[in-house]
Amino acid sequence: MLQDARPVTVPRLERLFEAGNLPAGVFCLKAGSIRIGIVADSGHERTIDVVLPGGTFGEASIFKSSEAPVYAQALIQSDLLCISNETILTGIQQWPEMATVFLELACTRINQLLAGMYVCCLRNAHQRVNDFLLKNAQPVGGSRIQGIVSLLVSKSVVASSLNLTPETFSRELHSLSDQGLIKVERALIHVYDLEKLRRQGIA
Amino acid sequence: MLQDARPVTVPRLERLFEAGNLPAGVFCLKAGSIRIGIVADSGHERTIDVVLPGGTFGEASIFKSSEAPVYAQALIQSDLLCISNETILTGIQQWPEMATVFLELACTRINQLLAGMYVCCLRNAHQRVNDFLLKNAQPVGGSRIQGIVSLLVSKSVVASSLNLTPETFSRELHSLSDQGLIKVERALIHVYDLEKLRRQGIA
Repeated sequence: MLQDARPVTVPRLERLFEAGNLPAGVFCLKAGSIRIGIVADSGHERTIDVVLPGGTFGEASIFKSSEAPVYAQALIQSDLLCISNETILTGIQQWPEMATVFLELACTRINQLLAGMYVCCLRNAHQRVNDFLLKNAQPVGGSRIQGIVSLLVSKSVVASSLNLTPETFSRELHSLSDQGLIKVERALIHVYDLEKLRRQGIA
Repeated sequence: MLQDARPVTVPRLERLFEAGNLPAGVFCLKAGSIRIGIVADSGHERTIDVVLPGGTFGEASIFKSSEAPVYAQALIQSDLLCISNETILTGIQQWPEMATVFLELACTRINQLLAGMYVCCLRNAHQRVNDFLLKNAQPVGGSRIQGIVSLLVSKSVVASSLNLTPETFSRELHSLSDQGLIKVERALIHVYDLEKLRRQGIA
């Protein structure tokens, strides 16, 4: 089936598809990064997901059951493979175990969206930033207390993925800096006390 | 496979499963109504979906890839069939076309969650209530202007499914009543001008 995959290159900040016009298939990202987002009539936006190399998206459109309200935009120049819905549906009939692979991808996506809904509806700004740092912190050496977060995309995209304005995201980071809990250095955030962040998140 | 389905009855307001302890399989609702919800540490809740007879839920747990943050609660006494994950996975190997059926269910769920995310992040309280009325209004006679919305669940559950407090939901309904656009009669909402609601929603 992979010989039927069509290579696609999308320049920085261009859109692969808009909300409304459903993607022609499932996309696999080879290099770059793709923002999946939703946009209101007012122009206000929210980032649902940032896809990194190795990631896939567009599974929900296989059956074209309804129009998805998402767009896909390249944050940097991105190389992808597109496997058309037609190829996938034919492939599933020929190799039915393929359906299981896509089903597993779809189930993972459902759980990810439910987690996103939880954040969006039930966590306040402070908790969202804490959660983000705790989830992405890599431990420094063998420490269970110190960690480091590498921002793979711009701060405004991170903010949007937490459904925060860039200003609110900055304010929360400043507040944590002022408490001596973190230090922001360009795309790196040093976390000095993961335990304390964890306790603050529960409270 | 259906002979392996286990009948389950859940009394009114009892929970079929809690967030964290993932459901043992896929559930199909025969009678009653089931609220799928998320709950914060603080106790604050949000209704994700209300499942009505004929509907299914629990698909995302088939592979147990991650814990879903949802609970399932019977709003009235409910009769269900539970098909265990094990039965489904064995069934898929025997009748691979079954995976396609579940894949289609999962894709529909993804699109539904994306639509919910859109509402939750990008529509204000007034727009959410308008959207709800427009989506659920049954036309009265041949009219394109008048419609009627039957509330199948309590107003507080509808409010929660729109991520609104019951108070905000009531306030929005009162405001529409005051404008002469709707009239609320117990579980029925008469909509007198669907066109005007539509125009207000875009603005």
